[in-house]
Parts: sequence; structure tokens; C-alpha cells
Amino acid sequence: MNTIGKIFTFTGFGESHGAAIGGVIDGMPAGVKIDLDRVQRELDRRRPGQSAITTARKESDTVEILSGLFEGVTTGCPIGFIIRNENQHSSDYGQLREAFRPSHADYTYTTKYGLRDHRGGGRSSARETATRVVAGAFARQALEQMGIIIMAYTSQVGAIAIGKPYSDLDLSLTESNAVRCPDQAKAAEMEALIMKVKSEGDTIGGIVSCVISGVPAGVGDPVFGRLGARLSEAMMSINASKGFEYGMGFEGVGLRGSEVMDPFTLDDDGNIGVSANHSGGIQGGISNGADIYFRVAFKPVATLMQDIMTVDCHGREVLLKARGRHDPCVVPRAVPIVEAMAAIVILDAVLLNRAARL
Amino acid sequence: MNTIGKIFTFTGFGESHGAAIGGVIDGMPAGVKIDLDRVQRELDRRRPGQSAITTARKESDTVEILSGLFEGVTTGCPIGFIIRNENQHSSDYGQLREAFRPSHADYTYTTKYGLRDHRGGGRSSARETATRVVAGAFARQALEQMGIIIMAYTSQVGAIAIGKPYSDLDLSLTESNAVRCPDQAKAAEMEALIMKVKSEGDTIGGIVSCVISGVPAGVGDPVFGRLGARLSEAMMSINASKGFEYGMGFEGVGLRGSEVMDPFTLDDDGNIGVSANHSGGIQGGISNGADIYFRVAFKPVATLMQDIMTVDCHGREVLLKARGRHDPCVVPRAVPIVEAMAAIVILDAVLLNRAARL
Amino acid sequence: MNTIGKIFTFTGFGESHGAAIGGVIDGMPAGVKIDLDRVQRELDRRRPGQSAITTARKESDTVEILSGLFEGVTTGCPIGFIIRNENQHSSDYGQLREAFRPSHADYTYTTKYGLRDHRGGGRSSARETATRVVAGAFARQALEQMGIIIMAYTSQVGAIAIGKPYSDLDLSLTESNAVRCPDQAKAAEMEALIMKVKSEGDTIGGIVSCVISGVPAGVGDPVFGRLGARLSEAMMSINASKGFEYGMGFEGVGLRGSEVMDPFTLDDDGNIGVSANHSGGIQGGISNGADIYFRVAFKPVATLMQDIMTVDCHGREVLLKARGRHDPCVVPRAVPIVEAMAAIVILDAVLLNRAARL
Amino acid sequence: MNTIGKIFTFTGFGESHGAAIGGVIDGMPAGVKIDLDRVQRELDRRRPGQSAITTARKESDTVEILSGLFEGVTTGCPIGFIIRNENQHSSDYGQLREAFRPSHADYTYTTKYGLRDHRGGGRSSARETATRVVAGAFARQALEQMGIIIMAYTSQVGAIAIGKPYSDLDLSLTESNAVRCPDQAKAAEMEALIMKVKSEGDTIGGIVSCVISGVPAGVGDPVFGRLGARLSEAMMSINASKGFEYGMGFEGVGLRGSEVMDPFTLDDDGNIGVSANHSGGIQGGISNGADIYFRVAFKPVATLMQDIMTVDCHGREVLLKARGRHDPCVVPRAVPIVEAMAAIVILDAVLLNRAARL
Repeated sequence: MNTIGKIFTFTGFGESHGAAIGGVIDGMPAGVKIDLDRVQRELDRRRPGQSAITTARKESDTVEILSGLFEGVTTGCPIGFIIRNENQHSSDYGQLREAFRPSHADYTYTTKYGLRDHRGGGRSSARETATRVVAGAFARQALEQMGIIIMAYTSQVGAIAIGKPYSDLDLSLTESNAVRCPDQAKAAEMEALIMKVKSEGDTIGGIVSCVISGVPAGVGDPVFGRLGARLSEAMMSINASKGFEYGMGFEGVGLRGSEVMDPFTLDDDGNIGVSANHSGGIQGGISNGADIYFRVAFKPVATLMQDIMTVDCHGREVLLKARGRHDPCVVPRAVPIVEAMAAIVILDAVLLNRAARL
Repeated sequence: MNTIGKIFTFTGFGESHGAAIGGVIDGMPAGVKIDLDRVQRELDRRRPGQSAITTARKESDTVEILSGLFEGVTTGCPIGFIIRNENQHSSDYGQLREAFRPSHADYTYTTKYGLRDHRGGGRSSARETATRVVAGAFARQALEQMGIIIMAYTSQVGAIAIGKPYSDLDLSLTESNAVRCPDQAKAAEMEALIMKVKSEGDTIGGIVSCVISGVPAGVGDPVFGRLGARLSEAMMSINASKGFEYGMGFEGVGLRGSEVMDPFTLDDDGNIGVSANHSGGIQGGISNGADIYFRVAFKPVATLMQDIMTVDCHGREVLLKARGRHDPCVVPRAVPIVEAMAAIVILDAVLLNRAARL
Repeated sequence: MNTIGKIFTFTGFGESHGAAIGGVIDGMPAGVKIDLDRVQRELDRRRPGQSAITTARKESDTVEILSGLFEGVTTGCPIGFIIRNENQHSSDYGQLREAFRPSHADYTYTTKYGLRDHRGGGRSSARETATRVVAGAFARQALEQMGIIIMAYTSQVGAIAIGKPYSDLDLSLTESNAVRCPDQAKAAEMEALIMKVKSEGDTIGGIVSCVISGVPAGVGDPVFGRLGARLSEAMMSINASKGFEYGMGFEGVGLRGSEVMDPFTLDDDGNIGVSANHSGGIQGGISNGADIYFRVAFKPVATLMQDIMTVDCHGREVLLKARGRHDPCVVPRAVPIVEAMAAIVILDAVLLNRAARL
Repeated sequence: MNTIGKIFTFTGFGESHGAAIGGVIDGMPAGVKIDLDRVQRELDRRRPGQSAITTARKESDTVEILSGLFEGVTTGCPIGFIIRNENQHSSDYGQLREAFRPSHADYTYTTKYGLRDHRGGGRSSARETATRVVAGAFARQALEQMGIIIMAYTSQVGAIAIGKPYSDLDLSLTESNAVRCPDQAKAAEMEALIMKVKSEGDTIGGIVSCVISGVPAGVGDPVFGRLGARLSEAMMSINASKGFEYGMGFEGVGLRGSEVMDPFTLDDDGNIGVSANHSGGIQGGISNGADIYFRVAFKPVATLMQDIMTVDCHGREVLLKARGRHDPCVVPRAVPIVEAMAAIVILDAVLLNRAARL
């Protein structure tokens, strides 16, 4: 299952060590003006090798759009695209050919498919997320033309958390540091922690927070198409994610109903709003016009720069030598992926909503 | 969107104040022996009015199976069923006809559909979850015949948490108390808290934990069909859920990769296992044969026994009088719903997995 | 797979000899005023026992709507409904329990599912089409409120064909005779033929033609969502259908491109139309504003009032005694089913089309 | 909607005048050995410019596989591929920019999307069918490894029909002539007719017949997943198709039930077969083990080498000058497309069938 979405859909393909990765964006409404430089800039935000705290692996990750655009505008036809793979050290996979790395997908893929492309993890490699960023970049531009803005940021690395709601932050600062944290002081702490962890050959987890503003009330579906459920599915489909919460989230379980009520308000023109937003902008699965906000937990990934004992496909114990070039913390590069997946979900929901009434 | 699943699917219908709720279970494999008493018992676990800590509203919630069974065995045909609604106090909805209850779906439904059945919340009412329990009860029986067991329990109410991993608990005790907590001492504390909250006309949140054992390695799909993503979507589609995490979850963000590795082990027969399970039984989106476990956060619901100021559909401020009969804590009755949704997801994934290889 | 449609969907259930048949209509736009008497009247058109040329079996086929309507208007919630089965002669199935009737689904179902409910054919019985008629009756009322009208009629029985295009017929006469043929003289011939075939214990095939007017230009999708493809799938899912054609259909293969061109025209207001309609209202998979018309071939069904040699599930030859009460020609009762399936397809396509542009 | 299939799916993209066409094959079972030369050979069968009776336009149509294969075997990962467009005469589209060609998709696309890429018809161009042939070539190789063989051929061009059932033909001769007709004498007549029609600047229609052997009994689903319905949808999604029939098809409407019965037979080992095959290998939507056969009608396409009056997007009448290089008869090149679409449908159904029983 490499497709997500109902009427605005994205179907991806590609492994880290094949010729290219890419995908098809389908159901893109016609008439959206697309800035291809912005698409590439989103990819650049996800690209490996962009700063000292990410993997040293370098790929230019240049997207080539193959269809669906005419004179800079979407035509309603599917948008096919590819990103060529460049950086393939495929010469030396000796150990990885047979050994199962702990907490990786080597064993589960082999069990499922009966065979495995050992060069880089196949579809379990985070490389495929580059294609999601492309799809998300198209969705975002459509959404922005409807007044919907999506902004994610790093809110926690290890035990270092911003500790403030998004409304107390200046999210325009997110891109001002390598860790993508809008709180500059915390960003410095996080960056220092990541460098320390990296120097130890270890990894660390963190949290990405995301805010979506401008979604009109009425988007999302009851029961199985709830906005929270669809966002959750999309976020939990990102590599290394282990948890999702929106609105008050897990913190809310310790509170009373009387504390978390979001009272309705009326402005002078009689427009309905809310004076609090514990609901996270979603009530009964449907947007209420307030900001939608959610958080995604990312684990410390299991690729260490340390030798490790494990087993291989012949049922033998083997010592796996430290190797590879990986991110000590995936969170900074996950920020654009979270935004992309959010854009894909929201555009689909906005389009579906057009069928709600006669 | 009232359908969930890809090849094993459930499609539900029904509002709390119509003639009946019900649904269609499709893609049920033929040849599954069904114990209908067990289906009804699952429904009884979700039923309102079952104990002092749940709503006083009473419904017998008797399921009538209309198709798809022959001589006690599934035939491969879709299973249609209904549950008649009995307890409809439809006489007096005066205020609810026009007022929007805060943190409910009244406003979002009206905005989406342009009109609203004010009698009980329509599809946003938790009543529809009874139909999910029926579908889940069928899926569970199929799964059990494959050796897959699903067990959920209340692990936290308000600030009272079990504080132990599931492996230190005797899950057979879950049904021994009204709160569905296998730790009897904690259960008593939780129950007391719920009674206190109830006496104050307030509500409280909590957490349901769930363990799935016996899923063979290889179930689930890479990328958009990851088991974690599909479970997350299913859980976040349950009313009042605000968060989902599996394996190490949010707690993992503060840890190092070296701390959360799940080393592979070999038993005497050369079978591969893991000696730790931070992954929660899922690696690269695919089961690894270890227990799958996850947690779902439920908010304190917004239906209080207190008068409250709000607005109505004419843009007027109104005082909403306390009324209704609702659960002070939805968590105990959410336990069978979590199990049902897990069963629906896992059976679908198990069946899909049969197409993984030539 | 008992669901059809993408955003307006119908999911059916039920066998001829269970408690009830029924289904769930999902994605119905809110705000459609529904005349339930018309829903029942559509069912009555499909009902067995309605005239001398149909089966003698009698069922009242009364639909009970269980959800999704409030004060006579659709709410956007799914519409669940059931039709109780009444006429179950389940006492005597002795031979059918084991014998495979030729050209029926007894053998294929048994092979697929490993078992079979021998009482009446399970889902292969045409009884389930009653539920499609209900779903179609809802879709039709939505479509009519958009100005889209669907009219089917019997255009051929055996070798007796109307032999005129629909534009030369008065389709308001379709219901004036039992055979549902708007050409009264031909209708009489067809009826006589059916009675003759019936008296011989035999069956005969025929063709249903269908015209859809009022579909605006622009509905339908390129490539896999072509209107012709979706209508074809829907029609070929009706029991006993063996062929589908639209526009010039099979007849067009013998013609030249220069003969079948549909020239565009301009009216005084500059509106574009066509002066011929070989395309059948669909070009490149998308409606062009002209009438959509198509034809569906139905075979003579294999249920004869004659003894017949066949085999049973033990691999023995057996003589199957003539029995049952079946239609000598399914075409007259297929007319409302064709209309219903067309309505389901067209409403879905119309709603999907709302997402075509920014 | 550019995706077809349920668990084995194909998603295509690309216009005739963009950089490339291509697609993603998903749900391909792991472990299928793929002969890439055969994939290319299938493409060559569809390629323009292959003989005197096809368009003079020449494209090498070389497929580049980008993912999903490892050491010549499918890995279970999605297979992405592209085919670069070479032959783009994009200099001169003056008239086509604004004029609507009769019986083409120019007008319907413009109405639907509000704009149109006038260079070659966008997705309505038959060029996209090349990507289906690639997907079908993968599906075929999987099917062949299960013993399932698909063979299509030209059975009629204009009024020249083979007039024999497929069982009286030697289908290995299909590729021996340019028209792809296994009856050599008829092939010569057909070829002469096509050349004559071409010389007149006109076009002609025809019929492709297809036979699928080796499908075991039990494949396909009741009701909406009937094999006949799914094949029909797939065939009617091919450009220029106007009709579909299987088994006795339209001819059956004139027959009696007693004439078209397919009696079951028993061989010496007690295996069940049929001694006639009016059903076309499908009963109740499910394969019965006999050959599946069907026919697809293709219209004479509307691209003539003649000047023609039409209208443009400004509501003006214009004279459209003859131009372009098109096939006088699409049928010979449709043969590999029909086979490809059949392979996609059948592989999906075979894989789905694995979930039919516990």
C-alpha cells in the first residue's frame, strides 16, 4: 500500500538504492498555479547533509516533474515526478546482505516477502519520504491559495522541550536554526544535545509540533473519516514516529471536563468562534474553524555508530560492525515531512467536503 | 465515510435517536465458526447502564444478525446486522434544537451539512460505537481461530495510573471490576475517583492500553499501510480519543537509541525472537512476531451536569441547562471498543498479507 | 466486495433466505428532500409477482429506513435500511443441498468459499438487487433535484426488438405495460413471446436500454474513471447481464469515422451542443452535455421448469427435478435495477466532479 | 482517477506532450521473476509506427524501470517506471489551442477543468495506454507463473469478421500479421480494408476478442466484484471502446435458456468441468475453471485527414485543417492493451481470492 488519500491521492515508489524514487499525485484540482522553486525548496529542507546535525550523506535531491503542469498551472491530470538517486555506495553490503539489524525492518521485510533488497532498507528507508515532500509541496500551494497555512516545528529533542504553547511562539523563526525550533534559546540547547549524542555514536528522539490555520469550519467526516484519525494515520506512517496527539492530547487525561471546555464566542458580526482550543480545532471529527494543532513523537532511531551483536537469516549470531551515515536525531528533517503529510490530508478533506451538501 | 478497512471492511450506520443502528461486515472469510453469545457479550461490555460508574441510561443493545451466517458458520457473504434503539427521550429537545453545546459536534455538523438532527448528536454520538463492537466481535473470533488474542484494559483514570508494563499484570482480571483495570488496588482508586467526579457533575479522562499477541511476523505494509498507522487511524476514530502511541511511544523521545534497541534472540530451534520490545511488535510498519501494544488517550468529555453559557444557531447567547445522562469517564466502556477496532485492523492486515508473495 | 462507489457509495447485504436484506447508503449529500413513497414505488417495480410474466413468488418487499433522514430530509449521515424476507420455502431443499445447478453459481460459490448456503443461491440470487433499487431511489431523488433524469426501458425480448432510437419513442409509456416497453405494439409481441416461453418451461433473454438526460458537460474522469467504464461496471454487476454498449456501441465497428462524427453546434446564445450523438453523451470519458444512452444485454437465465442431469458436490451424476418459481424473462424487472445502478454511478460522478478545479 | 485495482493496483501518469509518461505498479507479489525484454516486447506491440496500417508517428517507447526489482525478481515494493516522450511536434498547435475537435475530449476536458493542455489531448490521448501495457506485462508474468494465459486478437475490422469461435482458431498465429488476426485469410482482407480506409483519410472500427485460460474455479467476487463487471470496467476504460460482452454476450438475448445451459461433466477422476461454455467461464461473477472469453468493440476514431467545420472556445465557428498522424484503425494496436488490462484485473482477483476462506 503505497497510496494515501481518497480523492486527492499520492502514490509513491522507490528505494534508496534503485535508479530513482518518485510518485504520482492524483486528484490535484486544475487551475492551481505552481511555483516549482518552492517545491524544490521543500525538498531541500528535507535533504540529507544540510547541516552539521544531519547525516553527512549528500544527495542533491532534484525533482523532475514529468506531467500534469501546463504553463505553470495544474491541468487536473496526474502529476508524475522522479528524483534520481545519486549517492549509492552499493559496493560493500557484505554484512547487511544476511544480517538483521536490530529494531530495523530487515527481519520483518524478509519474513513478509521471502526476500529482501539489502541495499539500504528498501521502502523502510526514510529516503522515500522525499517523495511525500514533493506531493505535500503541491498540496500546500493549493491550500495556500485557499488561505490554509501549515507550519511545523521541533518542540522537543530528548528531554529539552520548548514548554510553551505554539501561540506563544514566533513560528517565522523555525527555519532560522538547523534544529527547526522557533525558540532560539531552546534551539541552541537542542543542537548542543544532538551534537553530543552524535559524538557518542548514539541517537536521540524528539517531538514535532504542527499548526494548521485557516481551515474553515465543516471539514472532515464523522466516524471513520475524522480529521484527527486521518492526520494520525498520516503521521504514524512517517518512519520512526511512535505517537500522535492533537488538542489537549495525553495531557488531557488528567483533567476535568469542566477545565477543558472550549466556550463559543460571538464577535460583533455574530460570527461564532471559541475562546479556548483544547479540542485542537476538531470537534466530532470535523474542523470548527480554530487552529488545528497536533504533536508527533519520533523515537531515537536504531542506527548507531557502535558494533552490535545480532542474528542473520541463517539463524546465526553475528557481530555487526558500525557503519553508515545516519542522522543522530531525525526530528529536524522530519519537520517538512510532517508538514507535507498534513497538507496531503487536509487538501483531500477540503475537496471531499464539497460533496457534503446537495 | 462510514467504512473502514481494505478487504475486511466494516460499514456502519445509525444515530442514537433513529429506529436502529447497524452495519455491514464485508470480506469476512468463509468458514469461521461464530459464537453469537460471545458477540452479544461484547456488546454487553459496552452497554450503557452496566454499573454505577457509567451512564444511567439503559439500553438492552440486542444485536440481530440478518445475513452471512449459515448453520453457525460464516459463508463469505456480507454480515448485515441491526441493534434497535429503545431509549429515546425525544420529547424534550427544546434547547438542543438550536443551541450549540461547547466542545461537542453540534456546531461543526451544522456548518458542514447545513442542518442537523438535534436529537442526540447524530453520528457524533458514541452510540454508533456499538456497531463497531459487533464487527470487532466477528473479527476477533476469526483471529482467535488463527491464534491471535486482543486484550485491552484501563491503565489510567485522571492522574491514577497503573504504572506497570502490561507484562507485569494479570490481564484475566480486567473484567473483575467495573473500571476494567487488571490492577485491583488501582481499580478501586480509579472507581472512587470516577464516583467523586460524577458527584460533582464533572467528567474525567483516562487511558486504555491494548496488547495483541500471536500476530505472526510479516503482517502490515510498508509506507502507508504500516500497522502502527492503521491502528492509530482506527483508535483516533473512536469518540473522545485525543492521542495514540505504540511501543515506547512519547516516552521514547527522551531516550537514546542505544537504550531502546530490541536485540534479536535465537532459541534452541533457531527461531528468531526479541529480548526487548520497545518497538511494540512493529518494525518498518510490519509485525515482528512480538506482542503489539499501544495506548489510547481519552479526554474528559464535555457533557457536564452543570448549567453553561453558549451560543445558538441564530448567533444568540443562551444558558444551556444541565441535562442528560452521560458517563463521568468514558474509559471503562471504551475498552471493548478499542479491542473491536484493533480486531478489525488486524484481521484486514492478516488477510492482505496473503497477497505478499507469488 | 459488496460496496460500489467512491464518495457516494452503496454497501449491500442479505441472501434470499436469511432474515432480511438491506444496505447502507453513504456519502448521500445533506439537504435532499426524500419522498419515501417513491422509494417504495421503485421497489414495487422490481418486486416479484407483479404481473403474469414474472415469477409467481410474492414478496411485499417493504423497505424500512433506519437512519440518515430527519424530518424527511437527508442529514449527511449514512442511510441504513432493511427489507425483511417473507417468502422462504426453506423446508424442502433436499436436492439443492448437494447438486450443482448448471449455469448457476452453486459450483463457483462452493469452490470459492468451501461451503455454501444452499437455500436460494446466497448473494448470487437476484434478490439482493432489491437493495440496489433502494439505494438508486435515493440517488435519483438527489439527481432529479439537479435536473438529471434517468429512464430505462425494455428494447428487446428474444428476437423482438423495438428497432427505433430512444428519441423516436415516448418513454412516458414505459410503465403502461408489464414488459416495460414504450412501443405498445412491440410490447404486446414481447409479452406474448414471454408467455409462450413460460408455457414451455423455458426462458428468454433481452435488452434494456437507458437514457440519462440533464447531466452537465464535465462529469466523469479520464482514464480509469471514465463514465462509460463506470456505467459498464455497474451494469455488468447485475445478475444475468452479459453485455454493455453505449453510444454507437457494437454497431459502430462497421462504420467509418466520417459517418460517426458528432459535429458541434452553437445556439444563438453561443452555447455549445452537438447535432448528432454517436458518442452517447461521453467524450474522453467525460459527459458532453448530450444525453447519455447505453444498452445492457441479459441472457436467458438457466432456471428451467424441466428436469435436468447434473453433478453434485460428491462428484456424482444426479437428475435435478424441475422446481422453483422464476421469471421466464428477467428483462422487465431489470429495468428499475438498471435505472438504480445508473443513478448510483451518476450521482457519485457528479459529486466527484466538484473537486475538479481549485 | 488514474488508479485501477484493489490490492494489485496500477497508477498511471503522463500526457503525450510532456517529458514522460509512466506509472506505479503496487501490490505486485514478491518473488516473481521478471523478463524485462518481454516487458519491452509488449510495448513494442503497442508502439506507433510498427507497420503500414498504423500511424506514421514513431516513438521508440523504451521503458525504464526505476524500483521494485532486485536481481531480476520482484521485491514486493512498488515498481515505478517511465517512458520518455520523444516525438513532440509542439511547434505548431495554432488551431488546436482554441478549436474543439468533434468527437474528441477537447470540449469535455475544457468544461471539466476550466483549462486544457492543447498539445495532444492530455490524458485523453491513447499514448497513456503504453503505461498500462507495462503494468500488464508485469501482471502477465506473475499470472503465467500460476498457469494463467491471456491471448487477445483482432476478430473484426469494419464488416469483416472472423465468424468462428476462438476454439476453432490457432491463436499462435495472431502475431503473424500486422492486423493481429489469427485467421490469415481474414487478416489479409482486414489489412486491405484498413489501407483503403487510410487512403481515403477516414477511419474504421473493429472488435478485439480475448481468451483467458487457466484461471482456477473460485476467482472473482459476488455482487460488485464480479469478474465480468471488473473486466468490463477495465475494457471500457480503453480509449475508443464502446462495448463489452462476455460469453454468449448480446447474441444470447435471442436464445432460450434451454439452448445456453452449460452442463457439468465429470472426468474419470471425478473432476468437474463443463461441456459447453455459454457462460464465458464466469458464473455468479466467479470463474468456473473454463476459459474466460470476451469481446470489446472499438469505434472508428474521429481523427480524419479531412478539413472539418467546428467551434472554438470563444464560441466561434472555425474550419479545422486536416493534420496529425493517426491510426486508420485502432484495433490492431489495441490487442496488447486489452491483454494488459485483462492481466491487471485477473491478477488482482486471484490475489483477492486468497482471503476468501479462513
